[in-house]
Amino acid sequence: MAGSVFGTLLTVSTFGESHGAALGAVIDGFPAGMELSAEDIQPYLERRRPGRSAASTERNEPDRVEILSGVFGGRTTGAPIAMVIRSTAQRSGDYADLAECYRPGHADYGYDAKYGIRDYRGGGRSSGRETVSRVAAGAVAAKLLKSCGIEVFAWVTGIGEERLNSDQMERIRNALISGEGAEHYLRLRDSLPTGIPDEETSRRALELIGRMREEGDSVGSSIECIITGVPAGIGDPVFNKLDAKLAGAVMSVGAVKSVSFGDGLSAMTARGSEFNDPFTVREGTVIPETNRAGGILGGISTGREIILDLSVKPTPSIFRPQKTVSSRGEETTLTIRGRHDPVIAPRAAVVAECMCALSLADSMMINMTSRAEYFTKFYG
Amino acid sequence: MAGSVFGTLLTVSTFGESHGAALGAVIDGFPAGMELSAEDIQPYLERRRPGRSAASTERNEPDRVEILSGVFGGRTTGAPIAMVIRSTAQRSGDYADLAECYRPGHADYGYDAKYGIRDYRGGGRSSGRETVSRVAAGAVAAKLLKSCGIEVFAWVTGIGEERLNSDQMERIRNALISGEGAEHYLRLRDSLPTGIPDEETSRRALELIGRMREEGDSVGSSIECIITGVPAGIGDPVFNKLDAKLAGAVMSVGAVKSVSFGDGLSAMTARGSEFNDPFTVREGTVIPETNRAGGILGGISTGREIILDLSVKPTPSIFRPQKTVSSRGEETTLTIRGRHDPVIAPRAAVVAECMCALSLADSMMINMTSRAEYFTKFYG
Amino acid sequence: MAGSVFGTLLTVSTFGESHGAALGAVIDGFPAGMELSAEDIQPYLERRRPGRSAASTERNEPDRVEILSGVFGGRTTGAPIAMVIRSTAQRSGDYADLAECYRPGHADYGYDAKYGIRDYRGGGRSSGRETVSRVAAGAVAAKLLKSCGIEVFAWVTGIGEERLNSDQMERIRNALISGEGAEHYLRLRDSLPTGIPDEETSRRALELIGRMREEGDSVGSSIECIITGVPAGIGDPVFNKLDAKLAGAVMSVGAVKSVSFGDGLSAMTARGSEFNDPFTVREGTVIPETNRAGGILGGISTGREIILDLSVKPTPSIFRPQKTVSSRGEETTLTIRGRHDPVIAPRAAVVAECMCALSLADSMMINMTSRAEYFTKFYG
Amino acid sequence: MAGSVFGTLLTVSTFGESHGAALGAVIDGFPAGMELSAEDIQPYLERRRPGRSAASTERNEPDRVEILSGVFGGRTTGAPIAMVIRSTAQRSGDYADLAECYRPGHADYGYDAKYGIRDYRGGGRSSGRETVSRVAAGAVAAKLLKSCGIEVFAWVTGIGEERLNSDQMERIRNALISGEGAEHYLRLRDSLPTGIPDEETSRRALELIGRMREEGDSVGSSIECIITGVPAGIGDPVFNKLDAKLAGAVMSVGAVKSVSFGDGLSAMTARGSEFNDPFTVREGTVIPETNRAGGILGGISTGREIILDLSVKPTPSIFRPQKTVSSRGEETTLTIRGRHDPVIAPRAAVVAECMCALSLADSMMINMTSRAEYFTKFYG
Repeated sequence: MAGSVFGTLLTVSTFGESHGAALGAVIDGFPAGMELSAEDIQPYLERRRPGRSAASTERNEPDRVEILSGVFGGRTTGAPIAMVIRSTAQRSGDYADLAECYRPGHADYGYDAKYGIRDYRGGGRSSGRETVSRVAAGAVAAKLLKSCGIEVFAWVTGIGEERLNSDQMERIRNALISGEGAEHYLRLRDSLPTGIPDEETSRRALELIGRMREEGDSVGSSIECIITGVPAGIGDPVFNKLDAKLAGAVMSVGAVKSVSFGDGLSAMTARGSEFNDPFTVREGTVIPETNRAGGILGGISTGREIILDLSVKPTPSIFRPQKTVSSRGEETTLTIRGRHDPVIAPRAAVVAECMCALSLADSMMINMTSRAEYFTKFYG
Repeated sequence: MAGSVFGTLLTVSTFGESHGAALGAVIDGFPAGMELSAEDIQPYLERRRPGRSAASTERNEPDRVEILSGVFGGRTTGAPIAMVIRSTAQRSGDYADLAECYRPGHADYGYDAKYGIRDYRGGGRSSGRETVSRVAAGAVAAKLLKSCGIEVFAWVTGIGEERLNSDQMERIRNALISGEGAEHYLRLRDSLPTGIPDEETSRRALELIGRMREEGDSVGSSIECIITGVPAGIGDPVFNKLDAKLAGAVMSVGAVKSVSFGDGLSAMTARGSEFNDPFTVREGTVIPETNRAGGILGGISTGREIILDLSVKPTPSIFRPQKTVSSRGEETTLTIRGRHDPVIAPRAAVVAECMCALSLADSMMINMTSRAEYFTKFYG
Repeated sequence: MAGSVFGTLLTVSTFGESHGAALGAVIDGFPAGMELSAEDIQPYLERRRPGRSAASTERNEPDRVEILSGVFGGRTTGAPIAMVIRSTAQRSGDYADLAECYRPGHADYGYDAKYGIRDYRGGGRSSGRETVSRVAAGAVAAKLLKSCGIEVFAWVTGIGEERLNSDQMERIRNALISGEGAEHYLRLRDSLPTGIPDEETSRRALELIGRMREEGDSVGSSIECIITGVPAGIGDPVFNKLDAKLAGAVMSVGAVKSVSFGDGLSAMTARGSEFNDPFTVREGTVIPETNRAGGILGGISTGREIILDLSVKPTPSIFRPQKTVSSRGEETTLTIRGRHDPVIAPRAAVVAECMCALSLADSMMINMTSRAEYFTKFYG
Repeated sequence: MAGSVFGTLLTVSTFGESHGAALGAVIDGFPAGMELSAEDIQPYLERRRPGRSAASTERNEPDRVEILSGVFGGRTTGAPIAMVIRSTAQRSGDYADLAECYRPGHADYGYDAKYGIRDYRGGGRSSGRETVSRVAAGAVAAKLLKSCGIEVFAWVTGIGEERLNSDQMERIRNALISGEGAEHYLRLRDSLPTGIPDEETSRRALELIGRMREEGDSVGSSIECIITGVPAGIGDPVFNKLDAKLAGAVMSVGAVKSVSFGDGLSAMTARGSEFNDPFTVREGTVIPETNRAGGILGGISTGREIILDLSVKPTPSIFRPQKTVSSRGEETTLTIRGRHDPVIAPRAAVVAECMCALSLADSMMINMTSRAEYFTKFYG
């Protein structure tokens, strides 16, 4: 396969380019019998939508999903679920000069080197717009997870130097895990244009974004994903460790440049005596008392919430003259025009969330076959 | 598949537990005609071997690889290459009490939750010893890459607070990339017990390790991998981005808790105008002038060296009493005995190196089919 | 994965139900740079189209394919090629009573047993209409093969007792292999309503079909596929033998009940001294002098044309009262109404052809990585 | 992957050449907790063993399997199960002249064309000896199936013109399905040197084999597999139909040249009114009254026994002079020496049985995730 198919049992095949006729996803292996309609998917697309605010480009495409197959009488049938999002505004003209040269920070040159041909309209397949397919598919997986009390939450933890501090982070995490106050933070996340669930930090970040826009520049950002309700025992040893799969899943989102689990970054300087999470018994269940591991040990979930943190690079499309090379191999200067968000995380958070949902659902389906007794009981 | 098979075209299937009869790997899809013998693999196993020094456990197993198949007349035949490393010292007795309770920081509880049965001898399949299979397989992939001038180097960048500074890092990178002075640093890496290619930092780190050992504690560490010689155009868009695959590959190594590419961590606070690498032309080839991206843009290699950094958690097996829970669900205190390195990176670096080699070789093989003209020329 | 994704490097993901909004396919891993438009696909869909003649149902859907992605400036880009065929006539009413009981010879009961829910409109996902996606995808693969002089031909060899005899078969094969007279037979195949490339046999078969239609009955049929121009060396040993993959590919077409290669059926009574094909040298190339093996030995192509024969069961939808069971578990009698061809091969031949093309193209792409020297030369 | 890995969830990776150090298999994804020891596997290897009788070569290797991993305390652990069969007699000398020329009916030329290098000792990887790995793996899968009352039986139905007639076939099938008399036929199968469970037919076949041996010739044969106890609902639609997977699985066994399901061969001339199996209710369960379909409709099991028939070509290694070509491209005459059975089915039957077991177990594991209610119940 060449990169646009994801998953082992629950597979997603995506398609579409930035300025093509349509984008979409085909989910194969999705269990039958779950209620599903476009209404389940639309809110996720809405969270990814451009033009929500000053933090986003103004290109206001509706991104309406159509389910073409796999649902009958309002329920999934086990057949592939094909979803299409038609493109409404295909203004290829804006991008004509991109045919001529390689944008710094973009995949243009790599695509040409690999394929010898490139759909240069808005980045083609390498555009962030590609993620609309992932969000559509992820929304379906997220619904399956929710049926078992599992929720994936992603939010923006900082934009440039405007960042949530560790106390704020802890408060948000605790609210999402316990459920108490979760509504409050999610409402902030979804209503504030930055996706940072704190009014003051968000306000400052928005100012920073405004400055970036004025200066024709862009700024990096960061995202945290937290997955609650995952039972212990999920994930496969060795190569398909739950964290390995999640890491691969989120690193496949365009601008993500790093991923860490739990207190993963500080692990490199920590002592074992402080980093190990002691086990305890809570309500009759074994569980780590603390969660520095981020919910996964040896690639298998511990029963604690899974926490991963991503750094996201600044939007590579900036409006200042940049040194680059033309496709004829001549050095040149490029000044990008058009509409581009100066920051990526506000729209990418839901994409990371959806990749986690797809990856986890796949691991959980595989896990249903982990014991001979399950097999014997199922067929006995 | 359930976790112990890696790769798409170049697949590796590994097996073996810490205290089982043998560990090994079967490589399928390896190209025919490459010279291969155990001598190519043995040095890699040597780098991973315990008991090299004060930094490592004393359990001194020789780890000799036997190639069972896939090689004829000294060359690979295209048939699966099976490699077996027989275990010599199987002292299950040392671990008998681990049957009874869950070690903090280990996968014990997760395995029980998942499988309902657990090979508790030294961690069984979840032991770091499992990685011997990956190293054997990775050595074979590394040889293929070397035939095209591609080298993967991994080294330890820090142990606890004893870390290489950014100048030292830059100097090592430049030496490895240019080749000038590379020998020197690699000799340091391979001769110093810490794997840190700097005498002074290594000496201080070794002192720290000594203190940890005395205190019955352990300490975290970090690794850098650099891959030189990769042509532009490698990696597949969307889910199988080169960085996504590499991230999944290295995160699948037991104690790795984070991965970042290039200046990935600082990306979250950077400006686009400083983070974008301008393109230039060098010896007739388009190439990024700087390499903040770490050699990959949009999931496809840029022609610059690929750089990834890993944080590694402290060895979870420490010799202090730890609060935990027994497999009967009762809270208890565990004091681990036996031999365990107080730090993981010195032996894990070669494992990360091997996972990078396997992942990259797979992507490069897939890439050979990326254009219709290649197909037509091959068969025309 | 759950069944609707095909291939290793060249993957096809299909979707759609008989009476859903649309059917389609997403091809991932297709090489970049090949000219492609809907015009390449439409003639294949035409050959599969119902209503061509007395041999087919009258349901005259146009089946127009739309390429949604993966093509830019008239060439493939390496990105997924999504193709959609919108359904025009969705008369669900005709099939309402099928919700209530299990049609003999159909997958209705199996689907209910498996999924607990069933899209009963015209068989839903298990309808022969599903194959329109395969034909669209196969047409694209066939074009790639043709660029190297490889052609896949499928034709109907018999309907019920009206069958081509072995002399006729031999004559057709020789024409297709040599090219001399190929046009003639292909014109007959495509113009005669039975798909049998012989006027007299076709006429008799058509009479038989007419009788079947009158009697409310149906009749079995058979198909031969011949693939010319395949170089020696294609196919992977052991599980992915070229014949094993082709067999799985064609057996996945609904009504196909058997597959044999070369003189495969008579092999069971043959002597080795007569069944072995001697090798000879022709125009400087080693080649089997005869072709009882059907072009494949040990799973690898020999350089001779590949020949496979399929038996196809009678259309299970007949218009006589049939004993069956309702979905409530009560025995009942069902009389199917609607439009159904009394024979399947005339429309299935192109489907078999397309499955062969997809399977072979995948094996050929994998084969490009079979030698270390190819790798070294590609990247050296 | 390049051919030596089988399965989706339950994967088998095999390795080894005819005259290499060892052959073996690694099963990944096998459920934890099943009792397993070499004793479960050894009887299967025994059935495949050469030298059982006049029907087989005298090369009397013991073929003892060693389980290297994945079993602890007598039970599977969910970790990969590695099995090795060491080769005892490696007389490469016998085969030295095969390096020089291509044996008709063998894969020699194809391997050279593909890989440019060939382990010519006894056919290397393309030898029938490779199947010992499949049998070891299949025995493990068969044990899992048996735990749910599912049995796979394969037996020889004919050798050359000495064949069981349809009455005899029916009697054997009925005995195996009902269990009444099954012991009798299985004892005949396992004790008679031909594997034909009928004394008289076996006696005549043995005479034929004797004549072949005298004449330096060989003869074709045939095998039937019947799988009893499979519940309705197994198999995945479209490409992974249960019959498509089984067909691919058995066609991957070296000398198999055709496969048909149920009355698959006669389907091509049958009428729908006679070929459709009416549904009925038996002990409260819907079931096809007859079984012309061979237990599968639309790729999904019907609840009836699955029946498949294979034709097997004559042993290509015959002892008469054969026209062929040398590896230098010169026409020559080859007279094969050594020990070769004049017929393949007696030893291949258990291989087909094992491939069916592996394929079915994989489909059944996947099927456990087919409904959302299973998921919710498992995790709820």
